[in-house]
Parts: sequence; C-alpha cells; structure tokens
Amino acid sequence: MNLYFQVPASDTEKDGLRASLPNDELWFADPSNPDERDRGAFEKAEVAFGYCPPDWVTASEHLRWLQLLGVGFDGYLSLDWETLEKRIQWTNMRGVFSSSVAETCVAGILAFTRGIKTAVELCPRHAWEKDKLRTSIRSLDGARVLILGSGTIAQCTRELLLPFGCEVRLYGQRAEVADVTGLQDLDRALSESDIVCSLLPETEKTKQLLNAERLGLLPAQCLFVNAGRGSVVDEAALIEALQGGRLAGAVLDVTQTEPLPQDHPLWDCPNVILTQHSAGGSNDEIARAIRFFLKNLERYRAGQPLQNTVDWRRGY
Amino acid sequence: MNLYFQVPASDTEKDGLRASLPNDELWFADPSNPDERDRGAFEKAEVAFGYCPPDWVTASEHLRWLQLLGVGFDGYLSLDWETLEKRIQWTNMRGVFSSSVAETCVAGILAFTRGIKTAVELCPRHAWEKDKLRTSIRSLDGARVLILGSGTIAQCTRELLLPFGCEVRLYGQRAEVADVTGLQDLDRALSESDIVCSLLPETEKTKQLLNAERLGLLPAQCLFVNAGRGSVVDEAALIEALQGGRLAGAVLDVTQTEPLPQDHPLWDCPNVILTQHSAGGSNDEIARAIRFFLKNLERYRAGQPLQNTVDWRRGY
Repeated sequence: MNLYFQVPASDTEKDGLRASLPNDELWFADPSNPDERDRGAFEKAEVAFGYCPPDWVTASEHLRWLQLLGVGFDGYLSLDWETLEKRIQWTNMRGVFSSSVAETCVAGILAFTRGIKTAVELCPRHAWEKDKLRTSIRSLDGARVLILGSGTIAQCTRELLLPFGCEVRLYGQRAEVADVTGLQDLDRALSESDIVCSLLPETEKTKQLLNAERLGLLPAQCLFVNAGRGSVVDEAALIEALQGGRLAGAVLDVTQTEPLPQDHPLWDCPNVILTQHSAGGSNDEIARAIRFFLKNLERYRAGQPLQNTVDWRRGY
Repeated sequence: MNLYFQVPASDTEKDGLRASLPNDELWFADPSNPDERDRGAFEKAEVAFGYCPPDWVTASEHLRWLQLLGVGFDGYLSLDWETLEKRIQWTNMRGVFSSSVAETCVAGILAFTRGIKTAVELCPRHAWEKDKLRTSIRSLDGARVLILGSGTIAQCTRELLLPFGCEVRLYGQRAEVADVTGLQDLDRALSESDIVCSLLPETEKTKQLLNAERLGLLPAQCLFVNAGRGSVVDEAALIEALQGGRLAGAVLDVTQTEPLPQDHPLWDCPNVILTQHSAGGSNDEIARAIRFFLKNLERYRAGQPLQNTVDWRRGY
C-alpha cells in the first residue's frame, strides 16, 4: 500500500514507522511546504497522514483515507465534501491532545492570576516590585469560570480547575453534558463569569459568537482565554476591550490570522499572552499522533470503522 | 487596650478595624519604615500585628502578643526567644496563605512546561515561533514531582497537581504525612524527580539542605521550584546548573537576599522565573490576614489559647 506522510516526524520516528510498516511504500513529504515530487507521491497514495493541500485531495484518484494531524478541518470546509466523503474517509485527532490543551488553558489563566507574566517581564529590567506584584495577584478560589464547549478538552479543563476552588460551568448544545445551553443562558452566564475560556471549533454557529455585544457582557476585569478557534471572537472588539483596560487580560492560543502578521496590533496589546497555537503541543505529540494513526491503520486494513471520523455537518 | 498595626492595610481596611474595635486604642504604623512616633506607640501596645522591628520587641515592656503577618520568623531567631516567649505570645499566619503559595507553585511549573514564559518573551519581538514552541513544551501527565515539605502548603500543592496526572511525593520528617523521610531516601528521591518543589522553612536542619552535591543528583532537565526559603539551597550551585543548561529551569519565589540586588546574577540567569516573594499574595491577602487576626484577638481577650503559635524549637 502507498502511504503519504506530511507530518514533522523526526528521523527516529520515520525509522519507527518504516519498521512498523515493512511491506508498504512510505513517502515522507515536507511537512510545511510539500513540492511537486511530494505531489507525485500523494497521487499514488491510498492513505495520507497530515494536513495535505486541499486541492491535491480534490484531485486525488487513489486516496481512500486522510488522517488529519490535528482536530480542526476548517481548511477543507470549502471543498465539495459531500462528493469527497463518498470516496475518502476523513479522520482527525479529537481527544488525543485534549489534556495538553487543557494544561495550557490553566497555565495561561494562572500566568495572569499569579503574576507570572509580570514576573517574566520584570526580569530583564532587574526590577524588584514585590509589593506591587503581591497585591495585584489573586487566588482562583471561588473564581467563576465559564468554558465555552463541552467536549473532552472542556471536561478535562474543568477537572484541572475544580481543585483550585473554581466554580466551573460548561456551555454547549447538549444538555446532558453542558451546564449552560442556548444563547439567552449564554448571555447571562457571560455576565456572571470571572474567567471565560473558549474551546469552540469553527462552525457556522460559532463564527463570531463572541461578537462585540457579547464581549461587552463580560464583567470588568474578566479574563478571556481562547484555545478553540480565532474566528469565534470579534478580534477588533476584543483588542479594544483590552486596550481600554476593561478586561484583565487574554490568553490567545488562536487568532483570526495565523501566523500572526508582524504588524498585527495583538503583539503590542496590553495584558495579552499569545501561545501561538501551541496548546495542543508537547514534545511527544508527533509520537502520540503516530501511535493513534497506526492503531487506526490496523482498523483500516481490517475493514473496521475508523476512529475519529469527522462530521462535516457538525463541523468538528 | 493599645493595639499596634504594622501592616499595609488600605484606608477601608483601617476603617473596618476601627469599627470592629471601637473601645481600643489603635495605631497604624508605616508598614515598611516605622519611625520614632511609631516606636512610641509600639512601646505602649499590649498587642502588635505585623513584622515589628526585632530590637523594639526585645525592648518592649507592655507587649504580650505579637501576631506576625506571614509564616516565617527567621528575622527573630537570633533574639533571646527563650526569655521573650515567657513574656510574649507569638503567632504566625500558617495555613492562611497556603492555597495562594500552592497556586503560584503550579503556575510557575506550568509556565515552563507549557511554554508560557517563552510566549511572554516572544511578544515584544513580534516573533511567531509556533513549531519551535509546540515541540519544546510538555505535558505534566506522568511527571514525577517531589515536594520538600509536608505541611499544609505541600499538601495543597499535591492536591492541585494530582489531576494533571503527576506522581507526587512529599518529603518531611513525619512518616505519617510524608512519603519520603530521612536524608538517604531524600537523595534517591531527588535523583528520580522531574520536578522538585521546595516549601521548606529556614531551620538549622534545612539550611543548605540542597547543597551542590544534592543539586547534582537532580536528573538533567529537572525543574526546580523554591517557595520556601532561599537559604535552603546553595544559590551559586543552582545558578551554575541553570547557566550550564543542566536544569530545565527554576521558579524562585525566594532567594538568599531579598530584595534581590540590582546586579545579582539571577536576574539574567537563563530559564529563571523570579516571582519576588509574591507566592503568598493575593489582592485580598490583607483582608484575609485581618480576619484571622480578629478571630485570634477574640481568643486572646477570652484567655483562650491562640491559634498558630510559633514553635521556636522547630523553627516554624
């Protein structure tokens, strides 16, 4: 079988894959800038792993299964997927990186509440500002946290925050897992939260959900975290609220444009931590992703249903 | 009764104290630089609250109870406390700020493992380094954490870390609360830890406990946290280990000299976060301390045993 890999695997990881798949034809493309030779290999592949160029996928003849390297598939939403999904199975990494994202959300929250961001910024200035620092920080005990999303990352984030004494509510569509459902309840919940953490994927329903009006509902000195998708929030309104000092800060793992352009106002916006879409990461993330892929490949060969098939209609 | 306050209370908090104690003589001294007028008030006081100058305490005639504003009392250890404790009751804030310190420890750990420190440093440079960031960070899942100390802060830190999937052990003297006791077991535990977090007070037994030899036992890329006392660690050896890249980083809430002098090498030491002895802090810390003091004052007036009396022999 011809397999096409467009993932940033190390040489050791590539060797491991070759050893695991001795009877297959493996091709390792440039993970970020695949070229014409890579395209030639892709055209022969029955199985591909990675965020392969959408137009190549549309044009492919032999491809039967595409395993994405992450959770999102916004880059493929404009394709004619109703036709494509008849020919190609699509799977993503849902759940594989949940705990990593949850850890970054908590890390970002604590970086504000415990003054870590300030401490890091004081160091190059050799500035001892103990008293100012001590009285500017706060405990998470009793903090009201609203998590937008009710999937595995949201649940994982809640589990990490509860021992701090936070009151955590999840917003989602399914009443069996979410504490807050429906836009009216969402609006009230937003106005009652010390910390709002969005983990929402990009769908027709979530795009610009946090528009200027809803951002205006957040209490003064609320902390905002976005580790879902940048398109969920009105970025200009968010920047205005941060520049005006209305919000305590923002931890943004995702932005509307990525990579963030050199001249983007978020770089210099006060009280912003930009984690640069790293939240799902860890130094063993590719190894974990490869393990997931290999298990799914066993299912594929056995003709069993694949794990983590994407739901185009839901959008995640 | 004459009461002397040497605490950074706000005007509102001072008014609150006056309202709570309408029949007493209250004096609010300069919290950091008490002057001769303050000294005059101190000499008349039966009860004092704050870190009052040690020589004033020795010379005092009327003082019967000193409530410290923090946990440590190293500044008074050189006094003739065997004589002083016959005349004066000493209490500290043990347990009152435990959760705050634990929160800062976890915040500092996550700032390294989730790349928050790097993210904060990249911002002023407008530098998008997503791929580098993603592969440099790690999950706490499975991390072996050794906490030096087995008191309330240590136990609180453990409770916060367990949901991350950490394996947490406490080092202390009492086998009923500590997982690791004795120096031989400590040495082995140090060599088996991904993260070492010291919460030890300064005592004869803890001074320089983490000498160069013990620091040498830490595995390469171990993360070190100190939110106890700076004197517990050989600072020069720690700096050498950090500058040489042997340790992944250090979160230092305490240092041997505080405030840290302008020209101290720790300011420019790679992979250090200096939280400037803020760990016990929160924007409501004085309010919390005052509530604790007022409850203890009720006990004092009723002739009941005070809470949190200091144990000079144990040193904490």
